[in-house]
Amino acid sequence: MGKGRLERQIDFVIEIDKLASVYRRTLLIDRSRNENDAEHSWRLGVMAMLLSEYAPGAIDVLRVMKMVLIHDLVEIDAGDTFCYDDAAAVGKAGRECAAADRIFAILPADQSRELRSLWEEFEAARTPEARFAAALDRLQPLLHNYYTEGAAWRAHGVTYEEVIKRNAHIADGAPRLWEFAKSLIDDASLKGWLPRRNR
Amino acid sequence: MGKGRLERQIDFVIEIDKLASVYRRTLLIDRSRNENDAEHSWRLGVMAMLLSEYAPGAIDVLRVMKMVLIHDLVEIDAGDTFCYDDAAAVGKAGRECAAADRIFAILPADQSRELRSLWEEFEAARTPEARFAAALDRLQPLLHNYYTEGAAWRAHGVTYEEVIKRNAHIADGAPRLWEFAKSLIDDASLKGWLPRRNR
Repeated sequence: MGKGRLERQIDFVIEIDKLASVYRRTLLIDRSRNENDAEHSWRLGVMAMLLSEYAPGAIDVLRVMKMVLIHDLVEIDAGDTFCYDDAAAVGKAGRECAAADRIFAILPADQSRELRSLWEEFEAARTPEARFAAALDRLQPLLHNYYTEGAAWRAHGVTYEEVIKRNAHIADGAPRLWEFAKSLIDDASLKGWLPRRNR
Repeated sequence: MGKGRLERQIDFVIEIDKLASVYRRTLLIDRSRNENDAEHSWRLGVMAMLLSEYAPGAIDVLRVMKMVLIHDLVEIDAGDTFCYDDAAAVGKAGRECAAADRIFAILPADQSRELRSLWEEFEAARTPEARFAAALDRLQPLLHNYYTEGAAWRAHGVTYEEVIKRNAHIADGAPRLWEFAKSLIDDASLKGWLPRRNR
């Protein structure tokens, strides 16, 4: 006989504890250490609660919250890929799909399908909910970079142009938040935390 | 002129980054370090998504998710109180109220009221949503204790009777989850991870 429903749900809860050991390039704002994916996911959940008014139209906040809480679970197997590292991005989609196959399958079939579908919706970035979630996923590390005087940008030699290019799609999910993010990026550049390419 | 709405919301997001530096007695399941409140809150959010079917009646999952994501923010100022430490619990309510006054006031007035009200609902544990949230808040560290062979229980000399007493109210929010939790507690006792008082 296979495992019972609750047993599978608990197995999943135990498995995803590992997300707290997947570290990101972003620093905590007090710069004491790097942030991990569990903390990042929690922050996005709170931001989804508080900032949904900046989506261009009405959105389903519950779906956004579910999406952001589970969007990085695949990194338990696939690891975090720094968004300014093009070489590391090669093969990322394949690694993440294999991870989703393994991790979501721990759940009972109905919940496995629900989480897989939320994750695919997030990755495809076509619905207003997914675009808003993606906007938060970009805005949050940008805030941390700005409030640490560009610590991760400077450590990895990221330029103004790269930050603009990687973050401009915040506008698709939350135009007002992009306007705000752009003002931080410009200010960071003025303050010397983010060099222009070929100055 | 005061700060704008978005500026206050962002100030709040920056402030609550500190939750990732409030450490709990619970260990990560791989025992590499103690868990922090941001990770704990994320876990409860995911558990709320997956386990709401065990509430005794229909509940508003969005409200539960919001509640668990913000329920420990007061610990930024008030610190984490180990639930088996009666001496540390003295004055806890006062410290937490003062913390709520300061932290939620960073937000625009409407959101400040909403989060304060969610936190008070959680603390009062009278609605089905708050009771379910409280059940998750107890079940999660219990799972971590069980899957680390009682590491935090043993480190702090906690007894079987204390664990039963502190966790029995899981039954108020999720009877089936209490039945499950009780089976883990009994098994932990059998395995010698949780001594009986006055054996």
